[in-house]
Amino acid sequence: MEKGPKLYEGKAKILYETENPDLVIQYFKDDATAFNNQKRGTIINKGIVNNKVSTALFRKVEEAGVKTHLVERLNDREMLVKRLEILPLEVIVRNLVAGTMARRYGLEEGILLKQPVIEFSYKNDALGDPLITIAHVLALGWATKEEIDLLIDATEKVNATLTKFFDEKGFILVDFKLEFGRHKGEILLGDEICQDTMRLWEKETLKKMDKDRFRRDLGGVEDAYNEMCAIVCGTE
Amino acid sequence: MEKGPKLYEGKAKILYETENPDLVIQYFKDDATAFNNQKRGTIINKGIVNNKVSTALFRKVEEAGVKTHLVERLNDREMLVKRLEILPLEVIVRNLVAGTMARRYGLEEGILLKQPVIEFSYKNDALGDPLITIAHVLALGWATKEEIDLLIDATEKVNATLTKFFDEKGFILVDFKLEFGRHKGEILLGDEICQDTMRLWEKETLKKMDKDRFRRDLGGVEDAYNEMCAIVCGTE
Repeated sequence: MEKGPKLYEGKAKILYETENPDLVIQYFKDDATAFNNQKRGTIINKGIVNNKVSTALFRKVEEAGVKTHLVERLNDREMLVKRLEILPLEVIVRNLVAGTMARRYGLEEGILLKQPVIEFSYKNDALGDPLITIAHVLALGWATKEEIDLLIDATEKVNATLTKFFDEKGFILVDFKLEFGRHKGEILLGDEICQDTMRLWEKETLKKMDKDRFRRDLGGVEDAYNEMCAIVCGTE
Repeated sequence: MEKGPKLYEGKAKILYETENPDLVIQYFKDDATAFNNQKRGTIINKGIVNNKVSTALFRKVEEAGVKTHLVERLNDREMLVKRLEILPLEVIVRNLVAGTMARRYGLEEGILLKQPVIEFSYKNDALGDPLITIAHVLALGWATKEEIDLLIDATEKVNATLTKFFDEKGFILVDFKLEFGRHKGEILLGDEICQDTMRLWEKETLKKMDKDRFRRDLGGVEDAYNEMCAIVCGTE
């Protein structure tokens, strides 16, 4: 599949057109940003790792019945995906309190929630991706009740699948972010699922194995990305 | 009813104990604050107006089946109320987009919502009273599903009652904030319902008749408070 003109460049990925108007190439960069772009840096080979991990995790959630945009991983840094009209909502799942939720409500990180929380945020960098409730989304007409129900159902399946998978490998899936989009009338899971978009803690030690190592200058960033990649992708 | 020791002093009101441990006196001050206390001032006789307006509106919502903490208005600035253990949630109802919601999502003020939005915020000045979803509240164990359902039911009754009342008087009830608390096992509507806690726009001119005149330095603050007081309370 030949790369066509650049469609869009984001913080961690670039999208390129292909000769097929329904398909685009998602290119994974090593650029890392945090705190709504206030912190910037590079994680060596992050793009390669995230492409592999995302491919493997998309395959896993597809087995659980969640439709994704993944067609195939083309090479180290490129994934062929279905072209999506991305919904302006980020879907965040929280199993334990961490990150933004801890700061927002003045809570300690690591509190186990009585049940997983599915949180929506309005995807808008200039506004800082503010939290939005389902009631707001419906009242503004930004999605229908059916679409929200579908997002929640798919998100619950992803959480159940990945929580179990990482638990069996010795890790806690603390929280993660999903993005969905429309493709030919269907809503598909898009974007990526990797250490940039998940918090993973080692069960025994609570060691952080995700982008928090970069966000919080904890060191060993590349090692954590590589270690999780080997665990997720096996000896591929 | 004799005033006892001061129990609590807030931004706009003071609570005093009484000889009855189940009852407290709510004293209405003229102090006005906005933007989480960053702006401070005085609205002459606001306390007197808010005490009258709140008493009248509490009576109205009680007729609609909503239980409140009101016992009786004692004098110009004092209201006898049932003692509440206030829930740490502010309940905000929005019929049109304005204020925080407009800023948070980058929207124009005055957009009519497809349906009223009931929004919760975590009552915490230091954190800026952040928006919180029902999913968060339940997952943190801060309220039960039954309590949330009760708050929503009461809030919907208040909105229906007051929207109709103000509409008939020629005003749009844009949004308002409620606080609830526990009293002997029951959840009662507490605090106040007045121009400090509601946005009211004149239907024909969209003239603001509420605390936004103070927040935004629009002038005629006292006139707006007095005019609405006369409308709500009649010739009392």
